[in-house]
Amino acid sequence: MHSLEALRENFLAYMQSQAFCKEPRNLYEPNNYFLQIGGKRLRPVLLLMATDLFHGNVQAALPAALAIEYFHNFSLIHDDVMDGAPLRRNFQTIHEKYNLNTAILSGDVLLVKAYEYLSKVDDQYFRKVFEVYSKTAVEVCEGQQYDIDFETQVEVTHAAYLEMIRLKTAVLLAASMKIGAILGGAGEKDADLLYEYAENLGVAFQIQDDILDAFGDESLVGKQPGGDIIQNKKTLLLIEALLRSEAEDDRRLTEIIQASVTDKAAKVAAVLDIFETYNIRTFALQMRDSYVEKAMSALQQLSCAEEGKEALRQLVNHLVVREF
Amino acid sequence: MHSLEALRENFLAYMQSQAFCKEPRNLYEPNNYFLQIGGKRLRPVLLLMATDLFHGNVQAALPAALAIEYFHNFSLIHDDVMDGAPLRRNFQTIHEKYNLNTAILSGDVLLVKAYEYLSKVDDQYFRKVFEVYSKTAVEVCEGQQYDIDFETQVEVTHAAYLEMIRLKTAVLLAASMKIGAILGGAGEKDADLLYEYAENLGVAFQIQDDILDAFGDESLVGKQPGGDIIQNKKTLLLIEALLRSEAEDDRRLTEIIQASVTDKAAKVAAVLDIFETYNIRTFALQMRDSYVEKAMSALQQLSCAEEGKEALRQLVNHLVVREF
Repeated sequence: MHSLEALRENFLAYMQSQAFCKEPRNLYEPNNYFLQIGGKRLRPVLLLMATDLFHGNVQAALPAALAIEYFHNFSLIHDDVMDGAPLRRNFQTIHEKYNLNTAILSGDVLLVKAYEYLSKVDDQYFRKVFEVYSKTAVEVCEGQQYDIDFETQVEVTHAAYLEMIRLKTAVLLAASMKIGAILGGAGEKDADLLYEYAENLGVAFQIQDDILDAFGDESLVGKQPGGDIIQNKKTLLLIEALLRSEAEDDRRLTEIIQASVTDKAAKVAAVLDIFETYNIRTFALQMRDSYVEKAMSALQQLSCAEEGKEALRQLVNHLVVREF
Repeated sequence: MHSLEALRENFLAYMQSQAFCKEPRNLYEPNNYFLQIGGKRLRPVLLLMATDLFHGNVQAALPAALAIEYFHNFSLIHDDVMDGAPLRRNFQTIHEKYNLNTAILSGDVLLVKAYEYLSKVDDQYFRKVFEVYSKTAVEVCEGQQYDIDFETQVEVTHAAYLEMIRLKTAVLLAASMKIGAILGGAGEKDADLLYEYAENLGVAFQIQDDILDAFGDESLVGKQPGGDIIQNKKTLLLIEALLRSEAEDDRRLTEIIQASVTDKAAKVAAVLDIFETYNIRTFALQMRDSYVEKAMSALQQLSCAEEGKEALRQLVNHLVVREF
């Protein structure tokens, strides 16, 4: 089995070899810029890893891996516009560096190019892969819409929040592994188990992200904590705090959310104080771990070599059970 | 052979039956709105017509026709944002009726759904159809980028302009007919000839549109003429006028373009005056007719029933040689 690092290097070299060198420059150059600002390349690496798990041809899976990475970046480019985000991984977003129209159109062509790379998949797998990909692409759009909807929605349930992060984050990770498994020649059951594994991993990963945003150590997390609190993002933590808090605390929390922010640090401190009172951190960790368990349970049933399972176990620990 | 009207009715009924009734409502409802504000449904009708020409199964071609119509509407939704257009066919555009984010995301999901419908194509044709569609989708994005680029580009050549309208308008019409032909069981040569026919028809159609915008009768065209002139759009007419005009006229035309517009009617009259002096209308009509001839020549070589050829000939006259 190849190491994750080797798979990543392999993917990066392939992606580099496919950099756009076409006209019109104003359409393609922004995508080259955005694609090279980095990221962990988690999705393509997961895809290649899944192919590798079943002793498939990793080289032959590269176009599908690139399709997934293009799709992911298309969604980031458009999400950044919708969120009005000036920076992504400390680099200017496309609408900021160029303009709105460029972000829309360069994103569009990246999505189209994603499908083009997907179509390089071998005939025997193409239909199956296309089906998984297509369903997932719709779901990611739906997840983004729910995320937007929740900003102005007064009440968001746990179930609705979990469904939103499943759609927005988890299904693309899951589809990456399932497509990789299909390309590796895995049977349907194993492909579905890998999907289940990565889907639950993805939800756990997002919950962990919410936890780190609230309680993370700035020097470890690499960004100032409390961003979600300042933005009143309806994360699992805030949803639970609104449910658990009583009387005075409930009134205070609602007041904090509705007030216009003057002192951000004070707002973060006040909300964290309520989180503390109601054991929100423990609650979130339990929720996270319940998804980790689901991922591990799917893993257990997988029929691949023990070495592969061990790598998948380590991946969970690496991605989810991060220090803070 | 079915009449164009019958094919259109058939398509409209199918499209209606496929209206989105999924959650999240804020994602899908705007697409239902946009899809029902009308239009001639030219692309899906051309697709079905091509299938019908070769005695193919028109019902089986409906999903591909819908894919093309979805793609076209996706591109309109995003183009309207980029152009800042408040109206489309006298209805509010999506970004105007809802907001920018909705226009971006609902457009995105419509593009994804287009691919989903395309994948309903029968196995024996899927690869071929996908290839045509994918290439075309990229080209339409490129055409839109060139159109944006030309707004700020000082000099635009005939060749560049014609390539832009080919990409932005003609190739999707051409792809519609080629896909329809493939689905109808046509041979490669006939599918390519229909592509060539519709591609040239598309360019002629766009030139005709430019001519009508400058010289059209308001009561016949249905919109105030001179819109392109007011916006300094580098149409074939303006490009040629800039080339042909000499000394005083050249200086005047450049001045008119660069000046900020105070009196729109005066601007239109002044530019039309220069168009008149240099026979721009005759030039444009000749250019248009050279593409009509190319379309007719492709048609000539087509191996389908004479009845079908006659319908295609009438279509050219109906779409391009309109009164003004």
